[in-house]
This record gives sequence, C-alpha cells and structure tokens, in this order.
Amino acid sequence: MKYVRILREGNPVWGVLEGETVRTLSAAPFEGVSYDGESLPLKECRLLAPCEPTKVVCVGKNYFDHVKEFGGPVPEKPILFIKALNTLNDPEGEIHAPAFVERLDYEGELAFVVKKRAKDGKAEDFLDYILGYTCLNDVTARDIQRGDGQWTRGKGMDGFCPIGPLVTDEIDGGHADIETRLNGKTVQKANTELFMTKLPQLFEFITASMTLEPGDVVTTGTPAGVGPMKSGDVVEINIGGIGVLRNYVV
Amino acid sequence: MKYVRILREGNPVWGVLEGETVRTLSAAPFEGVSYDGESLPLKECRLLAPCEPTKVVCVGKNYFDHVKEFGGPVPEKPILFIKALNTLNDPEGEIHAPAFVERLDYEGELAFVVKKRAKDGKAEDFLDYILGYTCLNDVTARDIQRGDGQWTRGKGMDGFCPIGPLVTDEIDGGHADIETRLNGKTVQKANTELFMTKLPQLFEFITASMTLEPGDVVTTGTPAGVGPMKSGDVVEINIGGIGVLRNYVV
Repeated sequence: MKYVRILREGNPVWGVLEGETVRTLSAAPFEGVSYDGESLPLKECRLLAPCEPTKVVCVGKNYFDHVKEFGGPVPEKPILFIKALNTLNDPEGEIHAPAFVERLDYEGELAFVVKKRAKDGKAEDFLDYILGYTCLNDVTARDIQRGDGQWTRGKGMDGFCPIGPLVTDEIDGGHADIETRLNGKTVQKANTELFMTKLPQLFEFITASMTLEPGDVVTTGTPAGVGPMKSGDVVEINIGGIGVLRNYVV
Repeated sequence: MKYVRILREGNPVWGVLEGETVRTLSAAPFEGVSYDGESLPLKECRLLAPCEPTKVVCVGKNYFDHVKEFGGPVPEKPILFIKALNTLNDPEGEIHAPAFVERLDYEGELAFVVKKRAKDGKAEDFLDYILGYTCLNDVTARDIQRGDGQWTRGKGMDGFCPIGPLVTDEIDGGHADIETRLNGKTVQKANTELFMTKLPQLFEFITASMTLEPGDVVTTGTPAGVGPMKSGDVVEINIGGIGVLRNYVV
C-alpha cells in the first residue's frame, strides 16, 4: 500500500493512495487501515511528512563511496545521530538555513517508518515492524557539522529533514534505485544494495539501544555525491517505486 | 513556584508543590497555572519527569574542569547533542544499560524546562521563556560514546535521561550548587557559576538553529568527577533549591 499524510481542513489526516485518489483514514495506519469513507483527488491535496515521529534516527556513512569522498576511516558499526522534531519538513516545503551557515548540503536517503514498538528487535523480524519506505533529505550545514565535530547542530536545524512524498511497502528497500537531482541535474545516483549495514541489521542494531515507536523514522545514510545548495535551488530525492520528494531552498 | 508532574489514577497530571501538598492543575503550566481544585499529599504521589519534551537538547563540555579531566581542546562554542524521548526517566526510576555496555557513567547536570516557543531568542529574554530549573542525569555508556565518536548512541539509550524531581523558578540557575552522590558519597561538586557558556547565551545559541517548544528540556553540561555506576548503585543529583533526583541502577 501507499500511505500519505495530508492536510484536510487544517488538520493532518492519513490516507491511502489509490491511483490519483487519496482515501482518508480515521486513524494512523500503524495498527491497520481504517477508512473514514471519504476520498480526495491527489492533485488537490497538500502532502505532509508521512510519519508521526518521536525521533528520526539517522545513520552516518552507510555507503562506502560516501565514506571515500569524505576520507577518514570506514566505521566498523553504524554511527547514529538524532534529528529532532524541529527538523521535520513536508514535501514541497521550503528549506532555509540561518544566515550564519556557509555551506548547506543535500543528502538523499532512503528512510523507513516504524509501525510497531520495537525494542531488542531481531533482523529477521524487520519487515513486521515497518509501515514502509520513503525518501528523506538529510539536509546538513556542512561547515557547522565539521566545526562542531558532533553532527547534531549542523543536521538539526529547523526544517532540515524533508520526508515524503509517501510511504510504501510495495518496494524492496534493500534493492532500490536512489537519485538526487539539483535543479533537474542528477547529483547522486546509487542503489541501496550498496548499504554497508543492511536494513534488517540496522533495525536490530538500533533497537538494541533505543526503543522505536510507531511513527518513528529511521534513515539509512547517503551515497556519494553530496554537495551544496543555494537559495533558489530545487532539490529532489527520487527513489524507484516511491516517487519524488521535492523541496525549495529559500 | 515549584512544579511537579505526578501519576494520578494512571494519568500524568501537572501540579504545584506547596509545602508537602501537591495542588493539581487542569493543564500543563506553560501558559499559566490553572488549578483543578484537587490536592494530594506529596508523600502519596509518584513523581514523573517534570517536562513534556519533543527533545532534550544537551551541551557537552560546559565546565572547564570537566573538559580538563577528559583532555582534548576547549570548545570555542557549545557542542550540542540530542537525547530523544526514549531516554526519559522519572525520579526514583531504574537505570538499566544493555548487556553490551561496559562502562555506564553518571553526569549530574542543571537543566531548564521551556514554557514558550522560542526561535532566534535573545539572551536578555531568557527568563521569559523558561518554566524553571530541574536536575538531570545525562547517563552515558562511556565505552560506546568513545567508540562511536558521535555521542548519540552512548547517551541515547532507553532510560538514560532521568529528570526531576521538580521544576522551580525560585532559584538563580546561574549560581546554583550542584552535587552528584553515588551511594551517598559525593562524586561531583560544583557551582553553575563555572559554566563556560552561561544560560542566557546558551538559550540564544540553541534557538539560533532550533526552535524550542513548550515542555522541551535543555541541559547544561556536567562538571568534573564523572565516573562509573554498577548494578545496585543509588545515584543522586542534588541541586540547591531544587532537591534530589534519585535513581537506581539495576
């Protein structure tokens, strides 16, 4: 299924996308789909980030080619960091950095949305715990990230986590084409087969330390090709079978 | 005023502590105090973490003496990291680390709770934005923190953020005695006058990047004297005018 979250009369509501129609739900789909009997044409909907996280758990350096472009050692284990709720941004939303940021980068990533509370999860049960996959832009103030050493501030500014446009369980997240486009030009291109830590193992690794809650988001690292954005740019993350997450740098 | 959050008939409710009596509130006190007409003796109350955060924003290395005990350079700016909601723990709660953690440390800290949304806040307005001060234990899996380089996982495990026992606006957070006791023995002792970045400047620094929401927590770093805890230990953070945050290592 393809899940979306939309704004209806000022309130967020979940829906299931069928063709060009959104069938809205009476509750979040984490415990199953319950239609509320209404539907809307997709083209009239304003899409919201398709999640309700208490946290976004992020992985640094999960593609060899991205580790190589930055130099430094290959991590033995996934390196985790958190993006808090202030970073959430919607499809078609604007990305804006404070004036003191000198270099603002895109990082296209595959993310998954959790549907069931998970602690000490096992790799083999991974698919039972996820609602599906979506696109995520791990927007990064690169100069701040480098200066601080800790990545939180450089990656944790307001609006630095666009997510969407939808969540789908109809793709294999471990074999998905991922592409980032800046003003229409391809700047990152990879397949999630290149993950250093695969999705099920990442799920087991994270939940050994942190409980994941329904609606939480885990994002899986970016491939090579990260680079800067400037005001006026349009950035798109395109993942096969999900669609395009488009945002505007202002 | 002294604010507490307690469990009443299975539901969390805010209250104001007057002597040994908790006068309960009909809503969180962020926009003002609204009594619900009931009261309970403090000694019958189970206290909860006195906050409703979307994030806990933490500062590393904010006392010179703690920087010195760890070696490495003195940071020019505050180093931020995030503890997500899975870390929250109550007064008198149990602290438990996964079996793979080899060294589990206490870090006693002064924290403040936000009462009003703040973005691009000014240092001089700091007091207008806070509900008050509380104690916080920035529990840390030191071996994981060191191994990862990024601090998130080592400081972000379930229950690694005990907070409480109450929030008070009756102290000067910039001149507070802070002490950590392990099994009754003092192991950290300092005064918040020793902050490298003072509270108002920290507030301005954080909100230049991140919106703080009502109920969010900011914790201010730990003084020298951090050290390990083991199963069976009782750890207490005692801040003058706030009281004692006590937790049990299991």
